[in-house]
Amino acid sequence: MLNKFCKKPLYEVTRTMARVAMGEEKAETVIRNARLVNVCTAEIQEGIDVAIAEGRIALVGDASHCIGPDTKVIDAAGQYIAPGFMDGHIHVESSMITVGEYARAVVPHGTTGIFMDPHEICNVCGKEGVKLMIEDAKRAPLKAMSNAPSCVPAVAGFEDTGASILAEDIREMMTWDGIMGLGEMMSFPNVLGAEENIHGELAETLKSDNIITGHYSVPDTGMGLNAYIASGARCCHESTRAEDVLEKMRRGMYAQIRYGSAWHDLPIIIKAVLDNKIDDRYACLVSDDTHPDTLVGEGHIVHIVRRAIKEGLDPIKAIQYVTINTATCYSMEHEMGSIAPGKCADIVFFNDLNDIRITRTMIDGEVVAENGEMTVDIPAATFPDNVKNTMHVGEKITAESFKIAAPEGAGDTVKTRVIEIIPNRVGNYERIMDLSVTDGFVEQDPATDIMKMAVFERHHETGTKGVGFLTGFGFKKGAMAQTVSHDAHNLLVAGTNDEDMALAANTLIECGGGLCAVADGKVLAVVPLPIAGLMNDLPAAEVAAQVEELDKAWKEMGCVINSPYMTMALIPLACLPELRLTNRGLVDCRTFSFSKLFC
Amino acid sequence: MLNKFCKKPLYEVTRTMARVAMGEEKAETVIRNARLVNVCTAEIQEGIDVAIAEGRIALVGDASHCIGPDTKVIDAAGQYIAPGFMDGHIHVESSMITVGEYARAVVPHGTTGIFMDPHEICNVCGKEGVKLMIEDAKRAPLKAMSNAPSCVPAVAGFEDTGASILAEDIREMMTWDGIMGLGEMMSFPNVLGAEENIHGELAETLKSDNIITGHYSVPDTGMGLNAYIASGARCCHESTRAEDVLEKMRRGMYAQIRYGSAWHDLPIIIKAVLDNKIDDRYACLVSDDTHPDTLVGEGHIVHIVRRAIKEGLDPIKAIQYVTINTATCYSMEHEMGSIAPGKCADIVFFNDLNDIRITRTMIDGEVVAENGEMTVDIPAATFPDNVKNTMHVGEKITAESFKIAAPEGAGDTVKTRVIEIIPNRVGNYERIMDLSVTDGFVEQDPATDIMKMAVFERHHETGTKGVGFLTGFGFKKGAMAQTVSHDAHNLLVAGTNDEDMALAANTLIECGGGLCAVADGKVLAVVPLPIAGLMNDLPAAEVAAQVEELDKAWKEMGCVINSPYMTMALIPLACLPELRLTNRGLVDCRTFSFSKLFC
Repeated sequence: MLNKFCKKPLYEVTRTMARVAMGEEKAETVIRNARLVNVCTAEIQEGIDVAIAEGRIALVGDASHCIGPDTKVIDAAGQYIAPGFMDGHIHVESSMITVGEYARAVVPHGTTGIFMDPHEICNVCGKEGVKLMIEDAKRAPLKAMSNAPSCVPAVAGFEDTGASILAEDIREMMTWDGIMGLGEMMSFPNVLGAEENIHGELAETLKSDNIITGHYSVPDTGMGLNAYIASGARCCHESTRAEDVLEKMRRGMYAQIRYGSAWHDLPIIIKAVLDNKIDDRYACLVSDDTHPDTLVGEGHIVHIVRRAIKEGLDPIKAIQYVTINTATCYSMEHEMGSIAPGKCADIVFFNDLNDIRITRTMIDGEVVAENGEMTVDIPAATFPDNVKNTMHVGEKITAESFKIAAPEGAGDTVKTRVIEIIPNRVGNYERIMDLSVTDGFVEQDPATDIMKMAVFERHHETGTKGVGFLTGFGFKKGAMAQTVSHDAHNLLVAGTNDEDMALAANTLIECGGGLCAVADGKVLAVVPLPIAGLMNDLPAAEVAAQVEELDKAWKEMGCVINSPYMTMALIPLACLPELRLTNRGLVDCRTFSFSKLFC
Repeated sequence: MLNKFCKKPLYEVTRTMARVAMGEEKAETVIRNARLVNVCTAEIQEGIDVAIAEGRIALVGDASHCIGPDTKVIDAAGQYIAPGFMDGHIHVESSMITVGEYARAVVPHGTTGIFMDPHEICNVCGKEGVKLMIEDAKRAPLKAMSNAPSCVPAVAGFEDTGASILAEDIREMMTWDGIMGLGEMMSFPNVLGAEENIHGELAETLKSDNIITGHYSVPDTGMGLNAYIASGARCCHESTRAEDVLEKMRRGMYAQIRYGSAWHDLPIIIKAVLDNKIDDRYACLVSDDTHPDTLVGEGHIVHIVRRAIKEGLDPIKAIQYVTINTATCYSMEHEMGSIAPGKCADIVFFNDLNDIRITRTMIDGEVVAENGEMTVDIPAATFPDNVKNTMHVGEKITAESFKIAAPEGAGDTVKTRVIEIIPNRVGNYERIMDLSVTDGFVEQDPATDIMKMAVFERHHETGTKGVGFLTGFGFKKGAMAQTVSHDAHNLLVAGTNDEDMALAANTLIECGGGLCAVADGKVLAVVPLPIAGLMNDLPAAEVAAQVEELDKAWKEMGCVINSPYMTMALIPLACLPELRLTNRGLVDCRTFSFSKLFC
């Protein structure tokens, strides 16, 4: 695949490469005396120099003859060097920061390339949102290679999104410079069912010689997995069992072993790879979703590499999993993923192979970060007004908005379908509970952990909303709201009383979206995410600090689970079992049909 | 890279793939109960079925549900199945048969794909010759993927060829459906020297997202090799030392380990790979040049696989070297090189992993050979008249044509530059010898093993010829001629007397080129190669039998070396040390200058 993410295409600079390697022209930069992590042959090579020009590697070996008076010489002094680390599947929006700020957070930790799926912003802003992410990336040296979101909306017919994507949109996006492939094809039932539009998306991607990234999340390694792979999906980050990952690799699918902030599939899977002693060229490491606090505290994919090594994986292999293997997955191994002649000079430096801490990051031959900080400027971005103005709720929200009338003829109580969450899991339960009726309305009851919730359509002022009840969070008071609510990202509000719910909702409408917690008529914490209601252009550390404040507020309100906003954010995702609430109402995700609130 | 060599592109059949895998549509063919050589994970898997439709694999595993009344079921009965074998670097012309007949010879031995470099015919017929090879391939199921010859002529300025190739020709050929990459870039001095046209060829190839195949044949693993790889060369079949192949793999270059009829680099190189315990994803096996008798006697690349196993290479790895590794080298691993869902159903069957003998070959889901024979018809080809009429010598050749006048004032002898061949080596020596002068002419002397030789330009009737003397073959009588004479493939004649030389030359002119041996005014043996003077459309066995007759004739004439036609064929190749004879005269290949015959 032709690469548009390097400083210059190789075809423009082959003569320079040859001349620099031969010493006829001097290198711009030479790294001397490094320990090379050679991912091509899985060896460590001592005393290696690297000569660089035009952002590419001209020579690996002895570069004495490549040094001239203007050559910048970096003495590695025996440090390890490895190819820059790449994350093969990542949603930047999950970190609640822009691509530019994401770059600032991850590049100092050795991430030089990401294959991002801007699925979230696409649900809000459509193709324009995807374009915006690609444009935003250009202000930072990080190679942010984008996939075109494939499943917008995630579950057609059950929710209202800001946009929708069809095969013809995929055809268009495949012609964009920044696009490398199709975003995770979550609609695997439609792949297996040979549905026309979804297969149209696959076909458009294959026709353009791009990569189909997968999402096959059911514990089936038989006919369904085969049908999915045979339809062209090249990788999948959804393996949670040893047998999933083994079977995917055996069937020629790249197993992107995931270790995100909320998804900890890695340990069991690494063990499976090790125990089976298989050729692991189809193994990669990815993060999928990372909270801003994880980025700040642990770094990005290097954190996952360290964890894999801790689980017993050979460090050279762990590095292969985030370099050459990922590059090969995307048909980019001729351009990146190894320190070899002709490749982009994306290089990381570190001291300890068993506890990798990046001290210097080079991208396209330029040192862009040292000792945890960027050494190059990332200019401020400007985002178009419409992307910063996405709160289009079709009604003025007041406490009245949350009233839920009991069905006619109801007595003191009414049998109601309640969503019960399961902490740290994506699934939930449908519970049938007797809720009490007061003056003809069904109400919250903090004493028995019954919250009310509502999802307001916020893209097209349709004025639609879904309402329901929720248990499991343990809130004793107050309310919360958030516009990070997968995948339609409508305005989700939950609380113990209608007044606080209205305040929470209006707080977010006012600040352009985000997350907030209120109690007793006061805003306790707010994380403004004015860009599409999903991101803020603040640095990761500042957003992480805001999220920490929010965490405290939730605890103050009595919340008993960790990272409740992640669990909350999945409640509207109408493809996860069992009961979900979208702006159109309750959805039974076992039967894919709408459910009545009252039985 | 988009693949135009499968029955149908995947994007046209993803829905069928899904439906067949799910059992909604029935498979066209199902292989049952096989032992799968899984090249993705390097494992043997027992009891595997493969379901096939539209020439592609829909499912690997249990295919019970894919079988309908019209499904062809092949019971593997526990036989091994592996992906079809591919040869990543091959000159079909070296086997002296057409691509169609080459397919007939190799497909029953398990070759399902070749990456051919029709360099020889291009020297004679130019781009039209390349197109002819691609067209010819279409009559047979073998996937003959072509590279565009890069170095025509091989040594510009020192010989006359039928055609020449410039960067603009490469640009054109890169748009052809049958072209996958640039043929072996032999002109490595020009790559290292940043020469404009050669780098133009590299650039055109890279721009079209195709593969540059290499030929780096000097024992240098330093700056030269780096310059060569940095200029974009992706693979190289010219490693003869352990350190060459190791260094190439370390620098991210595919090491195509060669075991051709005349090139036996494999044993020493396999040992190097084994001893170093390196990741060998960059290792492939190739044949480069194969004589028709090797094809008939041993088979094609399977013979090389067997040899690699004999040298200690793990059989699964040996199979990876001719399947997934080769496919990845050409960015084709998403289409071929593994038995996995979505891939082309190119599959071979065999009984013994340690002594692989192919019993059945399937290409695009169809059984095309069984028990050593094709089971499908290969229709006869018609070749255009101009390609069968390439003997354009500019003079009527008689015994007089071979007279070499002694320099004025010469006495009984004259100090003459003589080419001394080295049996089984590509190099030769320049010897200064005293040759006797008779009636003002310098003559052959069989008693001291001095043959006369001449190279006649045969493409454009320029009437140019080079003459010289030769020692080392041991001919006691007669003469030989051949139009297989690298790389210009002019008419080469050598002999012990001028009359037989004229007969040999005219015999070939009459039959359109080939090889022949004559003695005492009689033709002892002739191998007619009427297609470009390089190939015959006869089956390999028949051509092999003709070559055997020729061998006998040579022996009868006193020849002391094996396969003399190979050694002879390299005498005009003006890039090999030390002294060469082209149609323009003697060339000193140490200094790249013309030499005088007499000192």
